[in-house]
Amino acid sequence: MGESLGDVGEFGLIERVTEPLRQGPDVLLGPGDDAAVVRMPDGRVVATTDLLVEGRHFRFDWSTPYDVGRKAAAQSMADIAAMGGWCTALLVGLAAPASLPVAVAEGLMAGFAAEAASIDASVVGGDVVAADCVLLAVTALGDLEGREPVPRCAAFAGDVLVVVGTLGGSAAGLAALRAGRPDLDVVAAHRVPCPPYGAGPALAACRANALIDVSDGLSGDLGHLVTPDIGFEVDVAALPRHPGLAAAAAALGADPLDWVLGGGEDHALVAALPPDAVEEAREACAEWPFAVVGRVVDREGIVWVGAADVPASFDHFGGTS
Amino acid sequence: MGESLGDVGEFGLIERVTEPLRQGPDVLLGPGDDAAVVRMPDGRVVATTDLLVEGRHFRFDWSTPYDVGRKAAAQSMADIAAMGGWCTALLVGLAAPASLPVAVAEGLMAGFAAEAASIDASVVGGDVVAADCVLLAVTALGDLEGREPVPRCAAFAGDVLVVVGTLGGSAAGLAALRAGRPDLDVVAAHRVPCPPYGAGPALAACRANALIDVSDGLSGDLGHLVTPDIGFEVDVAALPRHPGLAAAAAALGADPLDWVLGGGEDHALVAALPPDAVEEAREACAEWPFAVVGRVVDREGIVWVGAADVPASFDHFGGTS
Repeated sequence: MGESLGDVGEFGLIERVTEPLRQGPDVLLGPGDDAAVVRMPDGRVVATTDLLVEGRHFRFDWSTPYDVGRKAAAQSMADIAAMGGWCTALLVGLAAPASLPVAVAEGLMAGFAAEAASIDASVVGGDVVAADCVLLAVTALGDLEGREPVPRCAAFAGDVLVVVGTLGGSAAGLAALRAGRPDLDVVAAHRVPCPPYGAGPALAACRANALIDVSDGLSGDLGHLVTPDIGFEVDVAALPRHPGLAAAAAALGADPLDWVLGGGEDHALVAALPPDAVEEAREACAEWPFAVVGRVVDREGIVWVGAADVPASFDHFGGTS
Repeated sequence: MGESLGDVGEFGLIERVTEPLRQGPDVLLGPGDDAAVVRMPDGRVVATTDLLVEGRHFRFDWSTPYDVGRKAAAQSMADIAAMGGWCTALLVGLAAPASLPVAVAEGLMAGFAAEAASIDASVVGGDVVAADCVLLAVTALGDLEGREPVPRCAAFAGDVLVVVGTLGGSAAGLAALRAGRPDLDVVAAHRVPCPPYGAGPALAACRANALIDVSDGLSGDLGHLVTPDIGFEVDVAALPRHPGLAAAAAALGADPLDWVLGGGEDHALVAALPPDAVEEAREACAEWPFAVVGRVVDREGIVWVGAADVPASFDHFGGTS
């Protein structure tokens, strides 16, 4: 099994996982001191934190440590994009038993750093502690480049609802793994999401009034954008499906719509745009799937045009939401 | 036992713990969106993250949830001070079983928010997930007010070594709890540290060349400041002891020096100052205990003048450090 965390100790592990890290030009002080110092040229910082727990958010028999690390970073980096920001720096805490192989911790951190590096973000700090569970605590920091942050609840009736990225892939991949079908294409989407990071700033620059990433499922997450004054009409047939969904649904005998409406963790971005900004946004987001999926109306609630039954969103404690 | 997290659910819990939070003027967007936005007028952010695990960093039979929350915030806020920064915002992740009473989670968050509020910092975001362990993941963000960050390894031979705050209280309190003596005064120091937050920026303004907070024990933490070119001579008799140490040592039959040199979690600040800055620093830190404890020398290593045997520092995985 090779060395464990207990063999190399806290400081030995920190040295091994921080040594390969490359720090970008915005990092004034990286790992190794009491805290990191990162340039925030805008005079503001966008900040978000997320926890991922083994057995609930990931399983090492279904994903490599590297893929888990990438997914952990992606989840928080997508939250920065969903404010219209660019993620520039991440911090990561790892809780694990002393028996965890060092290779697993190194794989987690290598994947985490690779996902960060995919958009030139730096891993600037972290913590490691012993615990009975394996858990990653991720904080992402980002820059707004002088723009206003795009909140959840500022859509206007008449706005056009667009989705950048695809839906349902992660949920379908999870279903495939549960059914013992790791050969299906959608499994890759579950292991490592591909959030359209750059679309966040692009949509903000195109005057998006509201912006969110789909982390718990479209039906639930879109509900977070509803206010007493506005709601949504969504054309279910227009929702952009992950390309592997049809094959997965056929193989598993499932209804792909459940994955499209209820599946989270793909981190597609959903924006409410003024009608005259849609074509500009489509061009700015040309490198990702872009779909007009509905409109904002002046009635509270969501009308799913073309769907009979919409699944509820995911609740981490199993309560009502 | 009252309601559990499973009863109220993830979103119910988030609503309860975020509702009482007060946001300071630097918070442009607080909890409830994909990410928070905080003003960083300096154009830089100081950032640090820490994990605390039940059974390892705290025990609910020894500390109230409120005290655990305060301690969790204090640990990261002290790291910001140790860079010479002011903590302005915190994020917190809570992992807990669905069976955890809501009152415990509310107590944790109330203590966390109270500690933040003690220096006008805001709790701007967080996450809650189900897990088999109880764990807090804390990220603190801070502002340097235009000063340079004070690193660990930039002391000069000839600098004077000072300690702001006291040492050994937390370790003595832990020993008292282990010995079944929760009546001893030092127990309060273990439950909630009182880091001299404002002394960090004050020491930075007084031209501190190196700065660190004592989180794992002076003997280990001071070792982090040693370089091949410089070391320390420490006058052990001059080290500022927590006022309850003598009574605790008498009651427990222990050597208080073990707590002073090896005990962490008090978060006293240790600084290397140019000799001509010491009196100015003493005045700037007048509201906290301030002691000149030694000097920086041009030889690698630490000489503990007046101590025969110096305990090693704490390693989270029990490895060598």
